[in-house]
Amino acid sequence: SRELFVLTYGALVAQLCKDYEKDEDVNTCLDRMGYSIGVRLIDDFLARSAVKKCRSYSETVDMIAQVAFKTYLGVTPSVSCSSAAGNEFSLILDKNPLVDFVEELPAERASLCYCNLLCGVIRGALEMVHLSAEVTFLQDRLKGDAVTEIGITFLRKPEDRKQKRS
Amino acid sequence: SRELFVLTYGALVAQLCKDYEKDEDVNTCLDRMGYSIGVRLIDDFLARSAVKKCRSYSETVDMIAQVAFKTYLGVTPSVSCSSAAGNEFSLILDKNPLVDFVEELPAERASLCYCNLLCGVIRGALEMVHLSAEVTFLQDRLKGDAVTEIGITFLRKPEDRKQKRS
Repeated sequence: SRELFVLTYGALVAQLCKDYEKDEDVNTCLDRMGYSIGVRLIDDFLARSAVKKCRSYSETVDMIAQVAFKTYLGVTPSVSCSSAAGNEFSLILDKNPLVDFVEELPAERASLCYCNLLCGVIRGALEMVHLSAEVTFLQDRLKGDAVTEIGITFLRKPEDRKQKRS
Repeated sequence: SRELFVLTYGALVAQLCKDYEKDEDVNTCLDRMGYSIGVRLIDDFLARSAVKKCRSYSETVDMIAQVAFKTYLGVTPSVSCSSAAGNEFSLILDKNPLVDFVEELPAERASLCYCNLLCGVIRGALEMVHLSAEVTFLQDRLKGDAVTEIGITFLRKPEDRKQKRS
C-alpha cells in the first residue's frame, strides 16, 4: 500500500516549500535528494528484479517503465522515443500515484515540479549503471497538461559509452 | 515495494536535521507531520480494510498492529498491555522497515526519534475516530535497545468516551 508513502512525500515537498522561497530551489533540492535515493535504490532494483543487461537506450527505458515504475510506484508508464538520434525518450503517465492527494498547486507555487524527486531517482540510478542522462518533467497534469511526461535524454551515444567502458 | 518509501523518508528526516539544530525540534516536527498524515490516512484505512468497529482499546491496538502496520509497512508488531487500568499498550517491532537503510544515528543526533512520524500518524488516525492518545517511542533499536517499542496511552477511559459520544 502506497498511501503512507504518497502522504509522506507530500510532507517532504511541503517542508521544502517552507524552507525555500523559490520554486526552482525546491525543484533542485528534490532532484538532488532523488539522485541520492536513486544511487542507493539501484542495488535493490538489480538484486530484486534479476534483470538482464540492457543492450540499448530503448531497452533501458522500457526496463524503467515496465519494471522500476511498476515495482516502486505500482504504475507502468508508456514509452515513446522522441528523437531521430535515438537518445531522447519520454515516459508518459496517465495516472501519477504520487499526486493522489494533491488537488492542485497553489497559485504562488506555479513553477513547482512537485514530483521532481522522481527525475533525480532515475538520473541517480542510471548514473550507477554508467549512463549519464538529463531527466526532467516535460508535461505535468498538476499544471493542466493532459498527461504527465518525464523526458530522459541520454548524454552519450552508445558508441562513446562502449569506448569509455572498454 | 517499500524501498523508495523508506529512502524518501530518510531524505525527509535528513532535511529536518538540516533545518533544526535540536533533536527535540526534529522529533516534534516529525510527530506533527505524522499527525497530519494520520488524519488523512484514516479514511483510506477505513475504506480499504472494511474493518468492524472496535469495542475496546485492546481491539483498537490489535487493529493498528495487525491491519494498519501490515498494510502500510508490511510488518506486524506484537502487542502488549502494560497497565492494570487497560489504557496503556505497546507495539513491539522486532524489525522496523523504516530503518532498513540506516546503520546508526550519528553521535550528534543521539536524541533523535528517527521514526517519530509513525507516532504522529497513529495519534492523528486515532483522533479521527475520537480516541485521544499519547504515542511515543519507548525503546528504539537505533539507540541500542533490543527491540523497537511504541507506547500508546489512551487518555480517556472507555466510559468517559461513551458518555462524550452519546
